Amino acid sequence: MIKTYFYKDIEAEQLQKLIDRNTDPNHAIQDTVLQIIEEVKTSGDEALKSYAKQFDKVDLEKLYLDASDIEELAMTISRDQMRALEIAFQNIHKFHQSQMKRERVVETMPGVKCWREVRPIEKVGLYIPGGSAVLPSTLLMLGIPARIAGCKEIVVCSPPQNNGKINGFVAYCLKLLRIDRIYLVGGAQAVAAMAYGTESIPKVNKIFGPGNQFVTKAKSMIQGMTDVSIDMPAGPSEVLVIADELANPAFVAADLLAQAEHGSDSQSILVCLSEEFAKAVEKEVDVQLQVLPRRAMAEEAMNNSYIIVAENLEEAMKFSNLYAPEHLILETEEWKPLVNKVLNAGSVFLGNLTPESAGDYASGTNHTLPTSGYARSYSGVSVDSFVKKITFQHISEEGLQHIGSTVEILAELEGLQAHKNAVSIRMK
Amino acid sequence: MIKTYFYKDIEAEQLQKLIDRNTDPNHAIQDTVLQIIEEVKTSGDEALKSYAKQFDKVDLEKLYLDASDIEELAMTISRDQMRALEIAFQNIHKFHQSQMKRERVVETMPGVKCWREVRPIEKVGLYIPGGSAVLPSTLLMLGIPARIAGCKEIVVCSPPQNNGKINGFVAYCLKLLRIDRIYLVGGAQAVAAMAYGTESIPKVNKIFGPGNQFVTKAKSMIQGMTDVSIDMPAGPSEVLVIADELANPAFVAADLLAQAEHGSDSQSILVCLSEEFAKAVEKEVDVQLQVLPRRAMAEEAMNNSYIIVAENLEEAMKFSNLYAPEHLILETEEWKPLVNKVLNAGSVFLGNLTPESAGDYASGTNHTLPTSGYARSYSGVSVDSFVKKITFQHISEEGLQHIGSTVEILAELEGLQAHKNAVSIRMK
Repeated sequence: MIKTYFYKDIEAEQLQKLIDRNTDPNHAIQDTVLQIIEEVKTSGDEALKSYAKQFDKVDLEKLYLDASDIEELAMTISRDQMRALEIAFQNIHKFHQSQMKRERVVETMPGVKCWREVRPIEKVGLYIPGGSAVLPSTLLMLGIPARIAGCKEIVVCSPPQNNGKINGFVAYCLKLLRIDRIYLVGGAQAVAAMAYGTESIPKVNKIFGPGNQFVTKAKSMIQGMTDVSIDMPAGPSEVLVIADELANPAFVAADLLAQAEHGSDSQSILVCLSEEFAKAVEKEVDVQLQVLPRRAMAEEAMNNSYIIVAENLEEAMKFSNLYAPEHLILETEEWKPLVNKVLNAGSVFLGNLTPESAGDYASGTNHTLPTSGYARSYSGVSVDSFVKKITFQHISEEGLQHIGSTVEILAELEGLQAHKNAVSIRMK
Repeated sequence: MIKTYFYKDIEAEQLQKLIDRNTDPNHAIQDTVLQIIEEVKTSGDEALKSYAKQFDKVDLEKLYLDASDIEELAMTISRDQMRALEIAFQNIHKFHQSQMKRERVVETMPGVKCWREVRPIEKVGLYIPGGSAVLPSTLLMLGIPARIAGCKEIVVCSPPQNNGKINGFVAYCLKLLRIDRIYLVGGAQAVAAMAYGTESIPKVNKIFGPGNQFVTKAKSMIQGMTDVSIDMPAGPSEVLVIADELANPAFVAADLLAQAEHGSDSQSILVCLSEEFAKAVEKEVDVQLQVLPRRAMAEEAMNNSYIIVAENLEEAMKFSNLYAPEHLILETEEWKPLVNKVLNAGSVFLGNLTPESAGDYASGTNHTLPTSGYARSYSGVSVDSFVKKITFQHISEEGLQHIGSTVEILAELEGLQAHKNAVSIRMK
């Protein structure tokens, strides 16, 4: 049974509880992660090899695979699989390519020209989770914008399988991305290695990618401890589906379950317009659950989830904006008028034929998105995440005449005489 | 005497030391700040009033000034000062307005449409430092992009003067920004108040602005403790000037000192092409220092600074990119060929007539910029900092036929059956 609430009956305090995610700050694992970070910082490769033995059950002679290993592994997958990865690559590339734009020069006063130029972050680190689920799609979602941005060095870390290799799908994606090395390091130790550098692994400027709670904790810790930045804080994945009376309960159930199978801490929330529709979806959830390989996980996640019955779509959108979902699916006949009403969300799927899984893999949009309410202030990963925008300005003699006295007055009123001098000395 | 190094003689280890900023992680103040945060979280307004008494030496009945107070204070400044603030406002507005752009829809496959839409961050908090230096310019630099972005709620906090008011320049900027309330709260307690909300002060989604080490520490702590994000980590301000033989040593000295007067921990670095030029600048620094009101501070900062003598501009640019300065001034006859070589910097000032102070106040570019090497991975504040870009996608029946099997294959190879189902059920 999924808990069902009527929006009109929800009181402020309960509303806050429904909106709040499981924000366990993971204090319990902080000490473990700090220890791993310190160990990698001081012992480098040696520490990484010892963690590989401990956590990945493998003895590594060297900490990476190179082009020939990757080539060989990539050839083990089927033609259909290659083709599917290529199509995903092309769509993701096409959409992200459109995010690269030259900006125009703005003349704010005659002779005062200002503009921004885009520069890649030189060294980026991509963490690709391994273990139970291997996610080649994540490698595409991070590697493609990194390539489009023009990052000089793309360091990829992923935990080794216990044969000391990586899976063929990941290898094929590396090939598509023209990345000829992958480091066999997982967990918090991978984050530490990319943050501080080791004998084998280069230090990077920014670390991207999802991971388990150790990886996530390590990312948030190195953000505070070093000059290395991160893509965004990460929490369990979540979807919010808004469905009207004409939506198909079977489609809705499938979308809720697609989210739920990620992990028992996932949230799948339905906002619909009647109790009858809610019941119809529940029934479909029960049916579809039976045949899922990851049924236990999905079932537990559904128990953490809930249904809201709203009076109308207006109210449904209001709740969605308060919740700020990572994924929002609008399974409504009329989705166009709702687009402008979406204020807080990571990625939005419009209409009855646009499942979230299309965006997870192949529509072209990025699947690295803000969770846990961070969609209120963060965007998902895009080419923007891999670049800086540097401002440039040039002032001519004419410009200096126009702007000079303004700067002098403002510097003076802030009591910064040397700031004023820097202008006055040029105006003489 | 400013320390002078010849670039060709600098060894790797020393180079690293020159590039590293004073990265004192302020562990000493962490406990104090945590205590302030906890106090504000539990006691709200009461705690804020008690801190105002303790730190700002003022008894506050209410924690804010409203429109009529602001109006009155704004009228106390001179017409020239008003005019200068208006010109700054217009230039900053003009440049930042150009950053708002609609993005086009990309059809990645026939029937698969993807695009991004810009949405403001709903509630933003701006911290405007007070105390020894009052910085109305910072209010413009944060308030203007917030207004352009369309943020619904702009919460401004600034420490009260000991008469319980704010200064007239800040008041006039509030008027220009059509912000009709300012909260009289400074320090770490202001950051905590905006992060958690109090009876008077609304909780926000993102906090912006510079401040002393307590403010900075509080920002970085609440970033880890709450769902509130921050603009960027902040450190002491810095400038790097690259000057060729034709540059004017007096201009260069003025620029170094403008940076140095910010605080004794500021860094002003000169990269030039001969020892003679370095000496000429040093001489000018000594002369100009004599008459500065903030001389002691500037002198100490110059002692933390250094000069690099490079063989040529190529080498100079190389060092600059390694250092990744917040401000970079290219005082060279030929600056155009250098623009493309700037890889890491916050804001760049081109040619001999473009002092940094123009950008600090009025050229139009933002002065909230990444320090301490963060320019390697962060951009300065812009309209982008106040918005999210949400991805949208719509798949038609035709689109589903094109993309369906690709998604099915990829979901299957990642072992996510429910992801596959969400597509399959729609293709039936």
